[in-house]
Amino acid sequence: MPVHHTVRSFDGELNFLTQKIGEMGDYAEKMMVEAIKAIVEDDQDLAARVIAQDRVLDEAEREIDEKAIMIIARRQPMAVDLREIIGAIRISADLERIGDMGKNIAKRVAAIAENRQPKAFYKSLEAFAKLALGQLREVIDAYGVRSLARIDAVREHDDEIDAMYTTLFRELLTYMMEDPRNITACTHLLFCAKNIERIGDHATNIAETAHYIMTGSYPDTERPKDDGTYRVGAAEPDNL
Amino acid sequence: MPVHHTVRSFDGELNFLTQKIGEMGDYAEKMMVEAIKAIVEDDQDLAARVIAQDRVLDEAEREIDEKAIMIIARRQPMAVDLREIIGAIRISADLERIGDMGKNIAKRVAAIAENRQPKAFYKSLEAFAKLALGQLREVIDAYGVRSLARIDAVREHDDEIDAMYTTLFRELLTYMMEDPRNITACTHLLFCAKNIERIGDHATNIAETAHYIMTGSYPDTERPKDDGTYRVGAAEPDNL
Repeated sequence: MPVHHTVRSFDGELNFLTQKIGEMGDYAEKMMVEAIKAIVEDDQDLAARVIAQDRVLDEAEREIDEKAIMIIARRQPMAVDLREIIGAIRISADLERIGDMGKNIAKRVAAIAENRQPKAFYKSLEAFAKLALGQLREVIDAYGVRSLARIDAVREHDDEIDAMYTTLFRELLTYMMEDPRNITACTHLLFCAKNIERIGDHATNIAETAHYIMTGSYPDTERPKDDGTYRVGAAEPDNL
Repeated sequence: MPVHHTVRSFDGELNFLTQKIGEMGDYAEKMMVEAIKAIVEDDQDLAARVIAQDRVLDEAEREIDEKAIMIIARRQPMAVDLREIIGAIRISADLERIGDMGKNIAKRVAAIAENRQPKAFYKSLEAFAKLALGQLREVIDAYGVRSLARIDAVREHDDEIDAMYTTLFRELLTYMMEDPRNITACTHLLFCAKNIERIGDHATNIAETAHYIMTGSYPDTERPKDDGTYRVGAAEPDNL
């Protein structure tokens, strides 16, 4: 049964891509959780390990790219299978960038250690990361089981992340204004918050790609992109 | 001559991708130049136009993706041609993100208008954008003529962008420490500087993809990624 064999083997190759995407998602999530933990607990060793882990996702992305090209060249797939393969290339790029976000946060542990902030703030950052990583987990799982309803629901929750980012942004500005000695550390924490907010954007990107894989078209509605912090200075000059 | 015709038409389709990438590069550069101009000249109207332009790059990216999938499905290309097509998908994603950077900067014009900074700083930002956009222009042009030597040279200049970013980062922290009323505006300018720095990263990504398209493998050497700002707090506690 050569035809049957070929079909099964092709399915196996597509499954390899889906499985590898799932592994990259797990790894990106783990890197981000550990980066936040390193910030909260001022753990330089953990930060160093996170920074070193970034290569794993770089290599996974390339492995998916090369496998995708090999599959296309050998199988010459059509329509939905081709979308699946091209989609895997795109999703792996988003996951690789989430790894970059984790690395970026880990690199700031040393800078922040010099001037520790109130414990309350780290807890906010932790809760924020939990919210964003929940979105990432959901979209990866929804893609894993090809649930279009769950995939589309992820896009609708991005505004929760934006709202929480705005709250954190304002909180950090307040700390900076209260005491100039907080400025350097808070600046680094602002970038950490921005990195976490971008996880939400990547989760949304992945949801859009997954929608495209399953339906052949992109979701229509423009998602809201304005997180509110752009207007902080303009809307509240009294803060200055 | 059906075979000859087919070959020429295939070349035409590949040329379409290259041409479209060139157009996206021009457009991303224009958006970024105008976003910086809007910041420097406090031009809200120009900022609004830049924000609206972002959709053009979103659509161009999707057009390239769909065309790429169509070419693969119809032509079933091998090896170098397939790399060319997959590479176009990746490069267009980088260019679309540079458009996002321009949009992000344009959105901050309103916030910064409330508390204008010393003119000297805007000039630094302008010079920095010029440096980063020069890298982008070079890699797009080098890809256009398929010059591997020029493509590889782009990666070597990323450290100039990182060095200039570090200088700007420190300068902005100084302004914030001098006067708390500068904090909100300078925070937005810090994010503008970060966005410009990321253009350099995208130019480097494009150079790596272009190298892969032409040779079939990625450049070996790990490029330096530490721009120095991560250590600002740790290395110079006296600044606080």
